[in-house]
Amino acid sequence: MILTVKKNSDKLSVDRLIDQLSARGLEINYSEGENFIVLGLVGDTTALDVNWLKSFDFVEEVTRVAAPYKKANRMFHPEDSVIMVQDIPVGGKERIVVIGGPCAVESEEQIQRIAKEVSEAGAVMLRGGAYKPRTSPYTFQGLGSKGIRMMEKAGKENGLPIVSELMSADHLEEFVQHVDLIQIGARNMQNFDLLKAVGKVNKPILLKRGMANTIEEWIMSAEYILASGNPNVILCERGIRTFEKYTRNTLDLSVIPLIKQKTHLPIIIDPSHATGDWSLVESVSLAAIAAGADGLIIEVHDHPEWALSDGAQSLKPEKFKRVIEKGRKIAEVIGRKL
Amino acid sequence: MILTVKKNSDKLSVDRLIDQLSARGLEINYSEGENFIVLGLVGDTTALDVNWLKSFDFVEEVTRVAAPYKKANRMFHPEDSVIMVQDIPVGGKERIVVIGGPCAVESEEQIQRIAKEVSEAGAVMLRGGAYKPRTSPYTFQGLGSKGIRMMEKAGKENGLPIVSELMSADHLEEFVQHVDLIQIGARNMQNFDLLKAVGKVNKPILLKRGMANTIEEWIMSAEYILASGNPNVILCERGIRTFEKYTRNTLDLSVIPLIKQKTHLPIIIDPSHATGDWSLVESVSLAAIAAGADGLIIEVHDHPEWALSDGAQSLKPEKFKRVIEKGRKIAEVIGRKL
Amino acid sequence: MILTVKKNSDKLSVDRLIDQLSARGLEINYSEGENFIVLGLVGDTTALDVNWLKSFDFVEEVTRVAAPYKKANRMFHPEDSVIMVQDIPVGGKERIVVIGGPCAVESEEQIQRIAKEVSEAGAVMLRGGAYKPRTSPYTFQGLGSKGIRMMEKAGKENGLPIVSELMSADHLEEFVQHVDLIQIGARNMQNFDLLKAVGKVNKPILLKRGMANTIEEWIMSAEYILASGNPNVILCERGIRTFEKYTRNTLDLSVIPLIKQKTHLPIIIDPSHATGDWSLVESVSLAAIAAGADGLIIEVHDHPEWALSDGAQSLKPEKFKRVIEKGRKIAEVIGRKL
Amino acid sequence: MILTVKKNSDKLSVDRLIDQLSARGLEINYSEGENFIVLGLVGDTTALDVNWLKSFDFVEEVTRVAAPYKKANRMFHPEDSVIMVQDIPVGGKERIVVIGGPCAVESEEQIQRIAKEVSEAGAVMLRGGAYKPRTSPYTFQGLGSKGIRMMEKAGKENGLPIVSELMSADHLEEFVQHVDLIQIGARNMQNFDLLKAVGKVNKPILLKRGMANTIEEWIMSAEYILASGNPNVILCERGIRTFEKYTRNTLDLSVIPLIKQKTHLPIIIDPSHATGDWSLVESVSLAAIAAGADGLIIEVHDHPEWALSDGAQSLKPEKFKRVIEKGRKIAEVIGRKL
Repeated sequence: MILTVKKNSDKLSVDRLIDQLSARGLEINYSEGENFIVLGLVGDTTALDVNWLKSFDFVEEVTRVAAPYKKANRMFHPEDSVIMVQDIPVGGKERIVVIGGPCAVESEEQIQRIAKEVSEAGAVMLRGGAYKPRTSPYTFQGLGSKGIRMMEKAGKENGLPIVSELMSADHLEEFVQHVDLIQIGARNMQNFDLLKAVGKVNKPILLKRGMANTIEEWIMSAEYILASGNPNVILCERGIRTFEKYTRNTLDLSVIPLIKQKTHLPIIIDPSHATGDWSLVESVSLAAIAAGADGLIIEVHDHPEWALSDGAQSLKPEKFKRVIEKGRKIAEVIGRKL
Repeated sequence: MILTVKKNSDKLSVDRLIDQLSARGLEINYSEGENFIVLGLVGDTTALDVNWLKSFDFVEEVTRVAAPYKKANRMFHPEDSVIMVQDIPVGGKERIVVIGGPCAVESEEQIQRIAKEVSEAGAVMLRGGAYKPRTSPYTFQGLGSKGIRMMEKAGKENGLPIVSELMSADHLEEFVQHVDLIQIGARNMQNFDLLKAVGKVNKPILLKRGMANTIEEWIMSAEYILASGNPNVILCERGIRTFEKYTRNTLDLSVIPLIKQKTHLPIIIDPSHATGDWSLVESVSLAAIAAGADGLIIEVHDHPEWALSDGAQSLKPEKFKRVIEKGRKIAEVIGRKL
Repeated sequence: MILTVKKNSDKLSVDRLIDQLSARGLEINYSEGENFIVLGLVGDTTALDVNWLKSFDFVEEVTRVAAPYKKANRMFHPEDSVIMVQDIPVGGKERIVVIGGPCAVESEEQIQRIAKEVSEAGAVMLRGGAYKPRTSPYTFQGLGSKGIRMMEKAGKENGLPIVSELMSADHLEEFVQHVDLIQIGARNMQNFDLLKAVGKVNKPILLKRGMANTIEEWIMSAEYILASGNPNVILCERGIRTFEKYTRNTLDLSVIPLIKQKTHLPIIIDPSHATGDWSLVESVSLAAIAAGADGLIIEVHDHPEWALSDGAQSLKPEKFKRVIEKGRKIAEVIGRKL
Repeated sequence: MILTVKKNSDKLSVDRLIDQLSARGLEINYSEGENFIVLGLVGDTTALDVNWLKSFDFVEEVTRVAAPYKKANRMFHPEDSVIMVQDIPVGGKERIVVIGGPCAVESEEQIQRIAKEVSEAGAVMLRGGAYKPRTSPYTFQGLGSKGIRMMEKAGKENGLPIVSELMSADHLEEFVQHVDLIQIGARNMQNFDLLKAVGKVNKPILLKRGMANTIEEWIMSAEYILASGNPNVILCERGIRTFEKYTRNTLDLSVIPLIKQKTHLPIIIDPSHATGDWSLVESVSLAAIAAGADGLIIEVHDHPEWALSDGAQSLKPEKFKRVIEKGRKIAEVIGRKL
């Protein structure tokens, strides 16, 4: 970490800070510039709070050199983490996974029908919302426990592990028992109590990026889970919020190589929420595979027009199948399998 | 609500949708344009899901005419809501409240000392974090229950109701008993389970705007609390996330007149988190009062440089006092009292 | 276009506006809702100013149904436009073009050397800046006319049409004579005088998206050129500005299918400016091809560390060659040629 | 400037870079951390290109310590710059100026009428657009030279210096002769050729902030003008583009104290473009004065509903007068005059 100190600062105060930092086991390198003094802090600065340092009148700027995350950091864990969801490996150099399913579980029949269709199309996991985060208190909030059981059954009968969003630690036990991959949604990416809670179980966690969170904050939220004891984290990019109005969110696929440089965790892409428009899903899915994603999570609905939520972004099964078929060919070109 | 339908759409499908909408009690006005058919939906469209409508192939665009919120809507509740925090009214035409205190409660001595200072300076409530949402799992996470008790004591001894952030419904009972104004932080603005939980208690809620949430989403989150049965909601703007790097967030004070046009709820401003820089707090605080804010919530610390969190944005007590003194004069000019 | 009018509005004023709109040849459909009156405007509303309509006290909202662009609109021009740059077709269903070259022309030797290398790697055009838009007045501003002549020569000797940025209409004549594809940079996307000027020449124009411009504004800037008489517009996405700090810009590849739905113009991608980081360029380039881009424009430098500008985002020739080789295979998979 | 270098880098390459930097007259301080080597560069780094340094494989990060601007920097010019527009001083500790007028000059009668009204209300300058930057080529583009002449006459007859936007250096001579304060619009903030052109004349320049430009880029654009020889720059904030949809732009008033800390230039606020909604202009204007703005530039129209452009954000004269009257009282409270 580097502190820039104003040149005409009170020497006593600066020395007092230097003593404090030394007492924390940091070595301090001192160098004088024309208008500023530069202090280089050597040692483990992970627990050092940038805002605390900025609160000193004489500190002009604070720059982190080392990343603030350790367990997620590829520097200290060079090989790819491969996370097992039941018997399906996510991450690594070879396999790409596709997860499909409806935005929300609506009925036993619906989820059975769609599970069958996504399985036949080539998906290896089933997604579906039972507890739904909805902007309005007046729209459908999901079937809750009933939905989870319907999915569990549909998953088992079609040989698909299931993925569903956990909105509150109150339901964690239920999820540990019945859900194979526990999703933390974008709106809860910085719900730190929830992160700590899922950090204490031994299930794989799918951590979505918050719609206005930096990549660094996202990795730090993964770090919360890892630091709490659960090493099974899969990252999921679903677009960020920008000024653009033609798409629901703006999806930056450059996060794929970036995440792979900075962390050892798998990353999958959600083209459905990223665009909010089914007619864009195919192009974006193929692009994600070409960019090196470890998987896709796609909304599929057989009658999107009657879906109780998020129909606009759902693919019909035959289009979903086409995405997988084309994706498979692109995967081959880059030396992977889908 | 207005649906724009492609001209060459399948008439049967469109008719089927019209029947569905009619069955929900909506009246449909039909008009044909050059390239599009326009359907005007008359009636209560609050529970209608825009994404569901967009999922129909033949629907080009969906436009909300009426706001999606009812209980927060000034149209149906023209007079200002005044929320009582103990015996202190927040909102209305006259009084402006100032809330002061440290970012985090650090010790009994610290909170006592600061409570005394903010009270003497003219603040009417005491703020302080006991459960802290921190980006890093390695930095100070707050004193928890102990911190709440310290604040409660310091508040009582100095005649100040206390404000603190609730991060999980697990601690709601504790907050109902010991905290006077329960804050929902920016990162939890769309933690809908938490919103529903605080909607079921009878305490005033301070709802901060999420750092990437639109004003409409913010009002919808207030609507969650109101619709769950708790009418005591105070909105708090704390800046939004943008590309600008010189300030921590970007604070748009035009939300003050906007919120007053659209809702009947009080709105207060947090200049400390908005700017992240104590040297900007005074200017922004005076601006907020001039723009019509119902209050300010400001971080104060007597030795910001030793604070365990967020020192960079904390005002020293003498500067806090000056903000109140200048603010008082501006309040007078616009016919209010502080 | 749809006007939402407040229910209790002065009837005379509303009627007067309706008369005005009728006088412009528009047909008006009138329908009454619970709280609002809805006016549907039928006819050509392209020249109607949304802000003018919003200025009426009684108008609550104005919604465009038809796109505000005509000449760029695929609705009125269903087949793809193919733009010829010398003898190289850009756009259409088959061919994908790759443009390579340094950020700035630095010397005759440098541009010759790089032209040869990009040509050998498979690029079909040469890019290079002679007039450079630089944030600081103190950094290298480009070689100007001399740079243009050096590029022209290097292009001719290597059989590559050249692309360079025009910053001012003052140099338009020079560009018409010596440059094959005239680039309008992101910072000038809404320099309307410049757009009109290049709309009057008969050269192909590469119109970059502004870093904070919506897709609609970008298409409207293309419309300026088209409406001024020049049909030869190629769009170029180069990332938009967001809160994210790990990349220079945020590149949304979903613009590729979107632009193809809304317009008939070719679209190429600039992964170098989009990411600002050469180590991300390969992944993003392959993704762009998979998503359906008509081309790539990539910065290449043989000694990036000595480049006078933007070295951080430049690929070395051998890496550029690898991008083309891999891209070629992906192009084949989706039925195109590179 | 600080370079962070990867620990296991090739020593020869690093030494070669150090030699290069030394040759530019910089002193280099070297310090070794756990994972990184830190190089502190001492001396004038203004002309050093961050991207060039980032292009070296072994450079992990580059941090600017000193600001990249010199002439605009308050550090080297501690006293406020006061810019004279005819006989009206802008900037300094005391006077606040209000500029009023229509978005566009529409006719001699219109500009005369409004000039009279804004003058009577207390404005000291007249604004009006003659060359209009419009998103659509199909909407009103302004009266051009004729409009300038109409404004000049209306200004003289009412004792008001005039402000108008220059869109192209082609009209610079006309503006130097007939306009008192030359505005560079948001869309041209990084039209560097235009900045250099107005840097060579001796007229005051009103430099608007680009809608997606950082404060630093904005100051750098001022630096272009200052470095070209024209010291008469007034900054104008007009809101930035964000995800929020209820307002046209997001106006951050914390730029006022920030600009005053970092530069010596006057800053005025444009609440009309910032909000896009006349009903928000009063609140925001008073806030700007309370925050320390040196002036306001407000759109005024006597019949906004018939205005040819931007009516939605224009104030009627009586409301404009009220803003000035209330603003005057707030100015007094903070020790200034309006």
